[in-house]
Amino acid sequence: MYGSTFGNIFRITTWGESHGKGIGVVVDGCPAGLSLSEEDIQQFLDRRKPGQSRYTTKRNEADRIEILSGVFEGKTTGTPISLMVFNTDQRSRDYGEIANSYRPGHADLNYDRKYGFRDYRGGGRSSGRETIGRVAAGAIAAKFLKELGVSVSAYACSIGPVQINREYFSKEEILNNALYMPDAQAAQKAQEYLEKCMKETNSSGGMVECEITGVPAGLGEPAFEKLDAALAKAMFSIGAVKGFEIGEGMNAARLTGLENNDAYRMDEEGNIVKKTNHSGGITGGISDGTPILFRTAFKPTPSVAAPQETVNRQGENIELCIKGRHDPIIVPRAVVVVESMAALVLADAMLASMTTRLDRIKEFFGK
Amino acid sequence: MYGSTFGNIFRITTWGESHGKGIGVVVDGCPAGLSLSEEDIQQFLDRRKPGQSRYTTKRNEADRIEILSGVFEGKTTGTPISLMVFNTDQRSRDYGEIANSYRPGHADLNYDRKYGFRDYRGGGRSSGRETIGRVAAGAIAAKFLKELGVSVSAYACSIGPVQINREYFSKEEILNNALYMPDAQAAQKAQEYLEKCMKETNSSGGMVECEITGVPAGLGEPAFEKLDAALAKAMFSIGAVKGFEIGEGMNAARLTGLENNDAYRMDEEGNIVKKTNHSGGITGGISDGTPILFRTAFKPTPSVAAPQETVNRQGENIELCIKGRHDPIIVPRAVVVVESMAALVLADAMLASMTTRLDRIKEFFGK
Amino acid sequence: MYGSTFGNIFRITTWGESHGKGIGVVVDGCPAGLSLSEEDIQQFLDRRKPGQSRYTTKRNEADRIEILSGVFEGKTTGTPISLMVFNTDQRSRDYGEIANSYRPGHADLNYDRKYGFRDYRGGGRSSGRETIGRVAAGAIAAKFLKELGVSVSAYACSIGPVQINREYFSKEEILNNALYMPDAQAAQKAQEYLEKCMKETNSSGGMVECEITGVPAGLGEPAFEKLDAALAKAMFSIGAVKGFEIGEGMNAARLTGLENNDAYRMDEEGNIVKKTNHSGGITGGISDGTPILFRTAFKPTPSVAAPQETVNRQGENIELCIKGRHDPIIVPRAVVVVESMAALVLADAMLASMTTRLDRIKEFFGK
Amino acid sequence: MYGSTFGNIFRITTWGESHGKGIGVVVDGCPAGLSLSEEDIQQFLDRRKPGQSRYTTKRNEADRIEILSGVFEGKTTGTPISLMVFNTDQRSRDYGEIANSYRPGHADLNYDRKYGFRDYRGGGRSSGRETIGRVAAGAIAAKFLKELGVSVSAYACSIGPVQINREYFSKEEILNNALYMPDAQAAQKAQEYLEKCMKETNSSGGMVECEITGVPAGLGEPAFEKLDAALAKAMFSIGAVKGFEIGEGMNAARLTGLENNDAYRMDEEGNIVKKTNHSGGITGGISDGTPILFRTAFKPTPSVAAPQETVNRQGENIELCIKGRHDPIIVPRAVVVVESMAALVLADAMLASMTTRLDRIKEFFGK
Repeated sequence: MYGSTFGNIFRITTWGESHGKGIGVVVDGCPAGLSLSEEDIQQFLDRRKPGQSRYTTKRNEADRIEILSGVFEGKTTGTPISLMVFNTDQRSRDYGEIANSYRPGHADLNYDRKYGFRDYRGGGRSSGRETIGRVAAGAIAAKFLKELGVSVSAYACSIGPVQINREYFSKEEILNNALYMPDAQAAQKAQEYLEKCMKETNSSGGMVECEITGVPAGLGEPAFEKLDAALAKAMFSIGAVKGFEIGEGMNAARLTGLENNDAYRMDEEGNIVKKTNHSGGITGGISDGTPILFRTAFKPTPSVAAPQETVNRQGENIELCIKGRHDPIIVPRAVVVVESMAALVLADAMLASMTTRLDRIKEFFGK
Repeated sequence: MYGSTFGNIFRITTWGESHGKGIGVVVDGCPAGLSLSEEDIQQFLDRRKPGQSRYTTKRNEADRIEILSGVFEGKTTGTPISLMVFNTDQRSRDYGEIANSYRPGHADLNYDRKYGFRDYRGGGRSSGRETIGRVAAGAIAAKFLKELGVSVSAYACSIGPVQINREYFSKEEILNNALYMPDAQAAQKAQEYLEKCMKETNSSGGMVECEITGVPAGLGEPAFEKLDAALAKAMFSIGAVKGFEIGEGMNAARLTGLENNDAYRMDEEGNIVKKTNHSGGITGGISDGTPILFRTAFKPTPSVAAPQETVNRQGENIELCIKGRHDPIIVPRAVVVVESMAALVLADAMLASMTTRLDRIKEFFGK
Repeated sequence: MYGSTFGNIFRITTWGESHGKGIGVVVDGCPAGLSLSEEDIQQFLDRRKPGQSRYTTKRNEADRIEILSGVFEGKTTGTPISLMVFNTDQRSRDYGEIANSYRPGHADLNYDRKYGFRDYRGGGRSSGRETIGRVAAGAIAAKFLKELGVSVSAYACSIGPVQINREYFSKEEILNNALYMPDAQAAQKAQEYLEKCMKETNSSGGMVECEITGVPAGLGEPAFEKLDAALAKAMFSIGAVKGFEIGEGMNAARLTGLENNDAYRMDEEGNIVKKTNHSGGITGGISDGTPILFRTAFKPTPSVAAPQETVNRQGENIELCIKGRHDPIIVPRAVVVVESMAALVLADAMLASMTTRLDRIKEFFGK
Repeated sequence: MYGSTFGNIFRITTWGESHGKGIGVVVDGCPAGLSLSEEDIQQFLDRRKPGQSRYTTKRNEADRIEILSGVFEGKTTGTPISLMVFNTDQRSRDYGEIANSYRPGHADLNYDRKYGFRDYRGGGRSSGRETIGRVAAGAIAAKFLKELGVSVSAYACSIGPVQINREYFSKEEILNNALYMPDAQAAQKAQEYLEKCMKETNSSGGMVECEITGVPAGLGEPAFEKLDAALAKAMFSIGAVKGFEIGEGMNAARLTGLENNDAYRMDEEGNIVKKTNHSGGITGGISDGTPILFRTAFKPTPSVAAPQETVNRQGENIELCIKGRHDPIIVPRAVVVVESMAALVLADAMLASMTTRLDRIKEFFGK
């Protein structure tokens, strides 16, 4: 059964394994006439590229994107946009141990059981490199959204026990530190925490928050295609995600109705506004025009150098130390992945929302 | 754009508003030969029926299910199963205030903005009654899963500030109390808390946990059709859900890799087992054969009798007291909805998993 | 695997068997704000109702449509529209022979092999009554298209060996004769031919032509969602269809490029026009703004009273005479089914075409 | 709106334009464990390669396929298989005339109207080169089907006025002549006819027939996913197709029920057999276990060197002579495209059919 296609109208299909010839994505349904260059996409990819800091793997991956189709004279043509990154760091290696044993916290055993065997090189399809296709496509979705006034911004809001302080929140700070945190002090503490994890050959979990602004009211479809349901699926489709919440999120379960409801008021310009945003911008699955705010929890990197109990393919208990270069934390490189997936959801929802009302449809067709 | 269809192979389409002629669902893709009676489905529906206790609305809804197609001589025929409940409690009412004002925490305003107008009677399509179709379909999915040894069980794990104590956990207790909690003491405390909420014309949030056992390894598809991504979407498609987490969930963000990884060991029968289940039964989006365990956070019922600030269609600030009978908490009736949606996801994933391996496919076709 | 859903954005799901409780359809994705009454739909259904003439079955089926959801105060709400016809002619009957034997030209044996058993009453799901849902949904699609200036018109263009003469073509004539032929003389000859078939306890095939006018240029998507591919699938989804052709159709295989190409010229108003319409209004899968013209071939009714060789479930050779009331030809009642399916395809393509160009999308969102 | 994805379970997404960097396809949902090499795919591609004979274009396209993902140690892994051909014949050219004028019979004008502009180089996305992705994917589908005993074979059955004679039909002959005709005499006459067309700077239409053997009974889903409906869509998704018929096809409209019905009889081994195959192997949308036989009509190549009336982008009437190397007939190279699309439909239907019956599903899961 297929599993590599995402989206209804703005639709992507990703492909590629960690150590195959390359990684890529086909973006189908992107409207015609959008200015698009490889540089637009590269900027997004560079944010997930390894080797950016001490806290991301030292692997030397150029990850240069190539546009193979769908763009002509600098503009999208409306036909599928094929994007690809060649895997350059494919040097031959001894995969003996990884090929033969099941790494805890990884999908190795599950793939073997599902498919009968697996491409064990670097995690194969379950590798974080699979997100290259998502980010490349997300860059296009983000550029499309920008034309419509919608902006998506993600950042790390916690690293292990270290959380950002809302009082010191600064969007400008996000790109100033290696961890993409919007609070310089928290970023400093988080770095100290990560140093400790690394010293202990251990790793850390963390959380990514995402804010979407400029969203018109009315996005999302009732019942199963709710906008938050689409975001939830998008986030959980990223490896290592274990939780997703919107607005008050899990905390809403502890609140009362009077605490959690957002009161409406008229503002001075005669617009309806909400006094609070406990809902996180979506109620009944439909956007209300206020900023969408959600959080995604990432588990700690399962690849740690410390010895772990596991088994091998021969059914023997073994102790495994995972060698090689691995991020002590997934979050910094996941920030742009969250942003990309959110952009894809929003681009799709914007297009879907066009087909909702007869009066607007008639206007569109000049009737 | 459509939004009322869910599932890839085992697929449902729900329809109906709170106060229309009825509510229903079409189940398409259910395999032929499954014994099925209206009674099988009614048992599920009775668990979400209002009027079961002090903590669910007193509305008198019979909610009798009718099978309109797809079953012949007591067995499913493989063709679409149409199920319907007639709305019997449609008495004429004064909807003036609800028709004209936007209830905080409800989708009223969003529907008006999306569609230009709305069926305001009882929330229309955004009413909790929309879940009748899901539960009816879920009953079929659950019966199908039972034939394959898969069992889905949901229960309330917290009500406002009251959480269950894992030490007192008892599956038998779930059906013994009005709140579907697996801990009698917690249920008692939760009831006291709800009495207090009701006295204050307020409402409470809560959380539903769901365990799925008997799941074979290998369910779920890499990338976008991960099993947990499908569950996340399913849960967020239920109105009032604000958070979803699996295994360690949001807490995984605070853990280290060594804490969060599940070590593998061989058991005495030569099977690979996990020493812990921090993953909640799914890694890399694929089931590992251990129980799946997830939690879903529900916000408090937005309909409260206490006065709330809001606006009306004329753009005036008003104060609204929501009259009528409303559950002080969504959770008890949502338990079976969670179970139903989970069953639908699993039924779909089981069928999808059949098409994965050439050796098994050849065997199926006798080649 | 599901098979009862059709359409991408304007999407329908049909359900029901010949002799179950009813037959229905859920229309999801119909835009909000369309005026819609049961009478609008009944008019379409009445065109496929049996008992209209000597050439359609004498079964007494009222086929009264009920709107169960999705319409409020006379307008579509944007949520799923559930439509249903109760089966009133369900009198208990002796199905012994049909239950036990496989009618030639019918799907009886195929259903038994596919599902292990079948609802043998009146053909079950493979009955022509299944088209009630399509026609009810088609009536809505046609009404939506009318708002956008698109009109779909089908008629019989041949009955057995009798073909219409293009010189005598008259749209007004279509509703004047029992066979829905646009040529009174051909209709007269066709009726004589059918009388002969009936006398010989035999049946006849025939062909339905369909013209769609007011179609804007640009409908249909390259590659797999070509507009003619969608029409071909729609037509072949109707039982008894054995051929589909557009424009020159099968005859194009015998032509040369210079004969078959449609030359472009500028007209006096400065519009590009085609001198001919060999293409049938679609080239490269995309509408060109000229009328779409296609034909669909229907096989003769397989149910004939004359004795036929077949086998029974016990694996014995038998001779079968099919009793009961059966149309000697499918075509007259299929005319409105063709029209309905074409309307569904066009409604879907119109909505899809809105998401094609950035400039038009920006305009829609006021950017 | 997307349009480049085909299939439900075995699903492909094609991309690429005539003169972009390359052309490719992502095959998702192909079962794991299938032996697959580039050579397997190249054999299929070589059959559609230009320059094979006097009747196909002289363009020098190597069309070497590369497998970029989804295959490990010579076997499919169950993850997406990305295939690509680099466009090597991209030499810079004067496209002035084609860029500025609308070729009759081509999609040029439609693309301009749909998207606002187009990649005019060699037809862009509407070029026949788009079929490279289909054929590459079809080769995989065909290899998968072979493992299950299903075989797909297409050939030219008419070229202009020249039809094959069923009495001289020889499968071996198909690969013996440049036109892929199964009748050597007809192939000879067809070649003479094509010579005449070329001399007159004209082109010819033709027809491709396809036989599928080894098909189990029970493929195809009732209502909208009928097996013949899927084939019809698949064929009409190929550019230049104007007609599709199965079994008796268009001719069924002229027959009587007694002529067209296929009688069942028991054979000596106790199997049910059909005395004839007027149905073409499918009744009620479901395969009956006999060979599937269908025909697809291709219009003549629209690119002819003779002068044609058309208009340019400035809205002027012009006369256009299309230069360059063009096939005088589409059919010979379309044969393998028909075969590929049919294989994709069958592979998908085989997988879908696994999920139909509870008894077989339980057996699969060992319950």
